Amino acid sequence: MKCTIIGATGYTAVELIRMIEQHPHLEIVSLVSDSKATESITEIYTFMNKKNYSLLREFSLAHLEEVGTELIFLATPSGISKQYLEQLKDWKGKVIDLSGDLRLDQISYEHWYEKPAVEPMIQATATYGLSEWNREAIKTSRLIANPGCYATAVLLGLLPFLKEQVIEPVPIIIHASSGLSGAGKSFSEQTHHVRSNENMRLYKMNRHQHIPEIESVIQTVTGQDAIVSFATHLIPINRGIMATMTLTPRINKSETQWREWLQAFYENEPFVRINGNDPEIKSVVGSNYCDLTIYADARTGHLTVVSVIDNMQKGAVGQAIQNANLMCGYEEALGLTQQPLFI
Amino acid sequence: MKCTIIGATGYTAVELIRMIEQHPHLEIVSLVSDSKATESITEIYTFMNKKNYSLLREFSLAHLEEVGTELIFLATPSGISKQYLEQLKDWKGKVIDLSGDLRLDQISYEHWYEKPAVEPMIQATATYGLSEWNREAIKTSRLIANPGCYATAVLLGLLPFLKEQVIEPVPIIIHASSGLSGAGKSFSEQTHHVRSNENMRLYKMNRHQHIPEIESVIQTVTGQDAIVSFATHLIPINRGIMATMTLTPRINKSETQWREWLQAFYENEPFVRINGNDPEIKSVVGSNYCDLTIYADARTGHLTVVSVIDNMQKGAVGQAIQNANLMCGYEEALGLTQQPLFI
Amino acid sequence: MKCTIIGATGYTAVELIRMIEQHPHLEIVSLVSDSKATESITEIYTFMNKKNYSLLREFSLAHLEEVGTELIFLATPSGISKQYLEQLKDWKGKVIDLSGDLRLDQISYEHWYEKPAVEPMIQATATYGLSEWNREAIKTSRLIANPGCYATAVLLGLLPFLKEQVIEPVPIIIHASSGLSGAGKSFSEQTHHVRSNENMRLYKMNRHQHIPEIESVIQTVTGQDAIVSFATHLIPINRGIMATMTLTPRINKSETQWREWLQAFYENEPFVRINGNDPEIKSVVGSNYCDLTIYADARTGHLTVVSVIDNMQKGAVGQAIQNANLMCGYEEALGLTQQPLFI
Amino acid sequence: MKCTIIGATGYTAVELIRMIEQHPHLEIVSLVSDSKATESITEIYTFMNKKNYSLLREFSLAHLEEVGTELIFLATPSGISKQYLEQLKDWKGKVIDLSGDLRLDQISYEHWYEKPAVEPMIQATATYGLSEWNREAIKTSRLIANPGCYATAVLLGLLPFLKEQVIEPVPIIIHASSGLSGAGKSFSEQTHHVRSNENMRLYKMNRHQHIPEIESVIQTVTGQDAIVSFATHLIPINRGIMATMTLTPRINKSETQWREWLQAFYENEPFVRINGNDPEIKSVVGSNYCDLTIYADARTGHLTVVSVIDNMQKGAVGQAIQNANLMCGYEEALGLTQQPLFI
Repeated sequence: MKCTIIGATGYTAVELIRMIEQHPHLEIVSLVSDSKATESITEIYTFMNKKNYSLLREFSLAHLEEVGTELIFLATPSGISKQYLEQLKDWKGKVIDLSGDLRLDQISYEHWYEKPAVEPMIQATATYGLSEWNREAIKTSRLIANPGCYATAVLLGLLPFLKEQVIEPVPIIIHASSGLSGAGKSFSEQTHHVRSNENMRLYKMNRHQHIPEIESVIQTVTGQDAIVSFATHLIPINRGIMATMTLTPRINKSETQWREWLQAFYENEPFVRINGNDPEIKSVVGSNYCDLTIYADARTGHLTVVSVIDNMQKGAVGQAIQNANLMCGYEEALGLTQQPLFI
Repeated sequence: MKCTIIGATGYTAVELIRMIEQHPHLEIVSLVSDSKATESITEIYTFMNKKNYSLLREFSLAHLEEVGTELIFLATPSGISKQYLEQLKDWKGKVIDLSGDLRLDQISYEHWYEKPAVEPMIQATATYGLSEWNREAIKTSRLIANPGCYATAVLLGLLPFLKEQVIEPVPIIIHASSGLSGAGKSFSEQTHHVRSNENMRLYKMNRHQHIPEIESVIQTVTGQDAIVSFATHLIPINRGIMATMTLTPRINKSETQWREWLQAFYENEPFVRINGNDPEIKSVVGSNYCDLTIYADARTGHLTVVSVIDNMQKGAVGQAIQNANLMCGYEEALGLTQQPLFI
Repeated sequence: MKCTIIGATGYTAVELIRMIEQHPHLEIVSLVSDSKATESITEIYTFMNKKNYSLLREFSLAHLEEVGTELIFLATPSGISKQYLEQLKDWKGKVIDLSGDLRLDQISYEHWYEKPAVEPMIQATATYGLSEWNREAIKTSRLIANPGCYATAVLLGLLPFLKEQVIEPVPIIIHASSGLSGAGKSFSEQTHHVRSNENMRLYKMNRHQHIPEIESVIQTVTGQDAIVSFATHLIPINRGIMATMTLTPRINKSETQWREWLQAFYENEPFVRINGNDPEIKSVVGSNYCDLTIYADARTGHLTVVSVIDNMQKGAVGQAIQNANLMCGYEEALGLTQQPLFI
Repeated sequence: MKCTIIGATGYTAVELIRMIEQHPHLEIVSLVSDSKATESITEIYTFMNKKNYSLLREFSLAHLEEVGTELIFLATPSGISKQYLEQLKDWKGKVIDLSGDLRLDQISYEHWYEKPAVEPMIQATATYGLSEWNREAIKTSRLIANPGCYATAVLLGLLPFLKEQVIEPVPIIIHASSGLSGAGKSFSEQTHHVRSNENMRLYKMNRHQHIPEIESVIQTVTGQDAIVSFATHLIPINRGIMATMTLTPRINKSETQWREWLQAFYENEPFVRINGNDPEIKSVVGSNYCDLTIYADARTGHLTVVSVIDNMQKGAVGQAIQNANLMCGYEEALGLTQQPLFI
């Protein structure tokens, strides 16, 4: 499958290149970057220098044709994917957009992202790429809205409980933390080492754009109107997300029973693991796994579900490749079976 | 005021020594360590080597007498303070215990700490040293239960709302994170750099010994039976705690009004600051401040209160010195006015 | 090729398991740990839990036979490999020892390691596994002394210059830094997060056991008696080594000429790259590359050669697999072509 | 002593404010920032918000007069101090410039800094502020060139040996590492957390502007033409410098004798400590100490001297205050006696 990456100099693209290279059936035929066209990716990222990539190219439909592109990864930021999606409207190949531009309807997008949405007709044809929950639709789709990193961690943890209606949809209290790669490659006070190091910072309280994504997917999948209280924090690590979710159960089970229930629910999933130990981000970094831990407490009556993922993998590139596998008819885990990088 | 530190080689003691040295009216007359008696603190911690401390001594009442001790800081771990407290029962000077041994009644202590409690009659005479909320009692006490680090961060954030009965006491959802110094000096897999670095770990879910401390102080101060759902996480920094607390308000105010309300509440406190920006741990590290931020969200109906402290300062040694100042009739902020160490 | 890992619970073993799993022709048939026999590796390292390993086993020749072991990786510490090497003396398969036990002759070993050396006859049959410099011997060897991490970084940088006699063999001044994984899994004050974090520490000055390894390999390969002044530092990262080496050239070339000279020297090596930018550890972490940078300064007359490797990869496991490939007649880079993990 | 800080929003200024606040005889009367004039320092750095600073002001001589400034700290970058120094040429108060603008003569400055030098007549009146080596001149000076951070660490380690002519002045091989605060507050790829974290990078090889500073001070103090080979590295910590220096002794002493010799040399210095243990940056962070360690090796014939300082303290602000104390006739250590922040 011949792949082109658009937005080829950001962090997402770097990870896509790394992962596609170890995938047996995907091949990069072009790297597109309008801002760095004619530059060499291996001069920007010198650590890649044993690889033979052609120079970065400007986007054009003719170029996609010329190199025989069959699958496009849009590794562009939210608000920038829009322009490529509109130009690709009549293009016949497959597209996976890793930005937020296809995840929300127009009204919701413009409210939460505070920028113009992609044409609604395009957004309407996109399939939400939460692989475990939308597998059949993904297989036949040609346009994927790859889920947000926090949304992936949260939804994989919440959906079994909401689907089976064993918890209340309101309130759902989520406190999540992410490493710095989630903030992308651009410079800011928050990403300056001296500021971020030895620090933890809460940001976008009640304003995070993954809130409507989470709530709308819950609506679509379970028919329930959940309301999510969502606090996001930046912690001084490069990769990883932990979401700690406090829930109110509707039925009575012991912690062990809940764990077995969840284990049974996800039994056949290659990338979802139910963890019997205290959860930690390191269990998944470098891998496409989502590890879920569940605690039940008689004293408070709460369930606590903890979800950890690598935001660059299951939260972005890993899941994009999982979706590419589904779209292309490959084995779902192909090229994604590496162990976490514990050390 | 002549001070002796018992348990003089742990992290708490190292911070006590640093702070007492810059305090104009406190003076260290002896460092006691039963496990390292006859060793030199400046050979254990060579960075101290321009200071002239006498050798570490075994504990004895005669020795305390001999050096003229007026104030003891117990920097021993929970379960170890007990033995010193019992030997000091009839000693006439002032004692500040930084462990958990005086914070809970016998039944609660033995349940949560899973070890024998100090004699109940001793615990009954101790004053809980949350300076801002127990100032008058501290001034006349001779025995202080210095609060736990998480408990300090949480209670300073919660008590105004519970005292004024403007939030529901149930449920209170708290997700808190701490740096590694909170885990103390002993070795474990969790404190090995390779494991803790680039990691975040949830631990002691529903089992943290600060849960009963928080709930019992709420009972004492406000007469309400709060139930706290408490998730604690380890993050790869040395110092600092952030507690993000999701609350259900009983009255309606805008975010600005809540902020002004809280500002007015703590108006005269030297160490509690109300923060209008996104909170971050770095704002308080190295200082005795507790910074509080408040968010109100019409969509979810929740209040979110975020509290940050330096666990070694306001969460331990800073508050101990603040309490010493109160007990000794000094100005409350004496020796504690240093700025945070932002860089 | 059926592989057994002895010492299967240390950091080296964890990395070996991760790498062997993505190798097309190597297969783990047994994990041996005398200290944790009968335990499960996936309960010790829960992040591995989608893999089906049999329980940890005690070492025995019978067991090796039973599972059909063809290749053993000794992932045991220096001083412990000795006992296995002696028991394996008449075993017919291939052995790669990742400890220091086969790298030095008896006198040198006992002087620098301060413990009893392996039987000299065993050590005499071992081949030093610096793949790029000993390829032909490795191909036909059945016993490999896998090089030390610092020694690998240093020798790959120094040997071209010494071999071609274009620098003085005395003095060679090397200042090197390593991440914490180099210190292994055991606990110590130096590996406690609170101590190592925000710190840099010099250790084993003039006493590092890689000094004689470096000097003896230089002797063997070039016939010269180099004297290496070697300062090693611990820095707060998990993986990676940088060695900055100050050399005195015997001939006159510009910086560009030196770079081209070195480029030509290593032209056909798959894992040695000559870097035109300022060197950084991140360029190689997660990969088997060794990146070399060269600076020539007319003012001082010195050449500075900088070498960076991932101590867990080219400095240990990656090179072990490279050697396994050579010994087994596979393509040398098989299973080792992953990109560095830049993010 | 009434102090004005010019360049009041950079890292150096933040540290100056923190230190001046705990100094009994220095008082901040104005904070000057041409780029942020009329803004509030406590809105830029909200962690300062219990302090009452007046708004940031534009620079003018009239303003200095008006607020009664007696001592100016120039916390402006190299190349920017120049313009203030020229405007202050006839001002009568004391000035300490923390930039590099007064450290080198015009030719050297313009060669190494690659920008226009300050007027030579101004530079000629400046006193080099390496407190321990220029104490008497500093006491009577009105204009101080505060030393560079690396230069301070290196010179305090080298000068005793060169002054006493017990080492060769050529070659001197120095490999030094610094934390990120040394790179200042501005944004770059190198200071982005994702890049700097888990990394070590060599930079400015043979081009660092502290090379001529080190060599010219050696010339001035000892009359010898030393040639320094200087490699500087960035490591992922916030504060601290370690310089490892390899030297060739002219006389024969044991390691213990060298240590005693150096101890005797610096016997009366309040801020120079001779360390008998392996050196580490953490020993000095937060303090004004310079810790020196010395190793002698019979095998190589080299002396290795290791110097550690906190780049924000002895490498910048601490030394500036030490110099202010000398200029103002205060006790040299006033306001600088805090312990290192080991935890």
